[in-house]
Amino acid sequence: MEFKKEFTAGIVIIGNEILSGRTVDKNTSFIASWLNEKGISVEEVRAIPDKEKIIINTINELRNKFAYVFTTGGIGPTHDDITSESISKVFNQKYQYHHEAYKLLEDYYKNQDFNEARKKMAKMPENARLIPNPKTFAAGFYVENVFVLPGVPSILQVMLPYLDKIITTGKKILSISIDSSLRESVIADGLSKIQKKYKNVDIGSYPYFKEKPGTILVLRSTENDEIKKCKIEIDYLIKSFG
Amino acid sequence: MEFKKEFTAGIVIIGNEILSGRTVDKNTSFIASWLNEKGISVEEVRAIPDKEKIIINTINELRNKFAYVFTTGGIGPTHDDITSESISKVFNQKYQYHHEAYKLLEDYYKNQDFNEARKKMAKMPENARLIPNPKTFAAGFYVENVFVLPGVPSILQVMLPYLDKIITTGKKILSISIDSSLRESVIADGLSKIQKKYKNVDIGSYPYFKEKPGTILVLRSTENDEIKKCKIEIDYLIKSFG
Repeated sequence: MEFKKEFTAGIVIIGNEILSGRTVDKNTSFIASWLNEKGISVEEVRAIPDKEKIIINTINELRNKFAYVFTTGGIGPTHDDITSESISKVFNQKYQYHHEAYKLLEDYYKNQDFNEARKKMAKMPENARLIPNPKTFAAGFYVENVFVLPGVPSILQVMLPYLDKIITTGKKILSISIDSSLRESVIADGLSKIQKKYKNVDIGSYPYFKEKPGTILVLRSTENDEIKKCKIEIDYLIKSFG
Repeated sequence: MEFKKEFTAGIVIIGNEILSGRTVDKNTSFIASWLNEKGISVEEVRAIPDKEKIIINTINELRNKFAYVFTTGGIGPTHDDITSESISKVFNQKYQYHHEAYKLLEDYYKNQDFNEARKKMAKMPENARLIPNPKTFAAGFYVENVFVLPGVPSILQVMLPYLDKIITTGKKILSISIDSSLRESVIADGLSKIQKKYKNVDIGSYPYFKEKPGTILVLRSTENDEIKKCKIEIDYLIKSFG
């Protein structure tokens, strides 16, 4: 499957904790599944460190390559949170307090010390538009086609739905999984022939090695008729091996 | 922390299943932890689809940028496994049967059909050197500084140790975690001062939101003395909040 640029996205995972191996990134999977529902295909994911130059260059490359860029991480209160300031530089915008973001935090911390670190979470590029955070009230934001989200999965997951109406949608990407107890090397030749026939279906083959080895076949397509026909042929292929 | 190029690596995760959100990538975390033990810092991770041009361009970019490149995925028997052929093109080498890899598979499949799909797993760039696979006997390989591994985590994990003697090692990257029950916005200002003092220590701050919110602080450094001193100052900072 090939997607028109308008239905493509890139994801940038910002944070040393992914590169050091400490944390397994779960945000890619969540964002990608959400985008697939909208008919948007994630074409590339990059994990990069908390370094300004690298953040700026990566965002600039991907925002030209794809219709949407989603970033995660680096918008908290600590010294290693430099995403918002870096994004300001990407767009040559002032990095300053966002009035509404500031007010939300001020209310949230009204009985606590609203210190410099907490105020910092309201600093954004001057033309940023907010992405609400109903959990900890430190908002995300977007500028043009770059959407800036936090790294904590439980917070990101309640924020993403606010973008439902902002992201243009294409044809939903359908997905069918078939669990076959055959090793993939048994069905590979047959699968290859079926793949050649169905250009609008991506057939993925994912072997597993549990008590018995087997293969999960994943069909993906925006075309309902083709994916169904393709499934019938694959079912038939699997049955032919008994 | 900045690492000299000779102690840097990039990881390329090849496979539509990561980009579609179906699979959470666990290989990055495993490879990165293994490299950190050797004093090698992962500077960038990319997840890309099973598309030849993209694979070739990505590998070419990263193998010049970093001392080592590790790839995962796309070396199995099916139509969507195109990593080995793509790597052959990266190095302008013939894509052909590797004698030893072929023999290993032939022995393994001696009581079964050694079909075209299975033979395909022995096809590699002509100057490839094998990385043994004691589990399913389909070898990985490397050419110059590019190390080609499978996508299935349980197989990758038994293969990586074979590279222990091949990868040059630097100073082990030490890591200390401190679980603080303080919100990161409470200690952010103090942390920032400590970070400025210890240039050779990377202080990462990772908030969590369980029953009570808290923050895990992760110190990373190749310098044993500095990381210990830095830890003492952070412990003191945390205590100062009671």
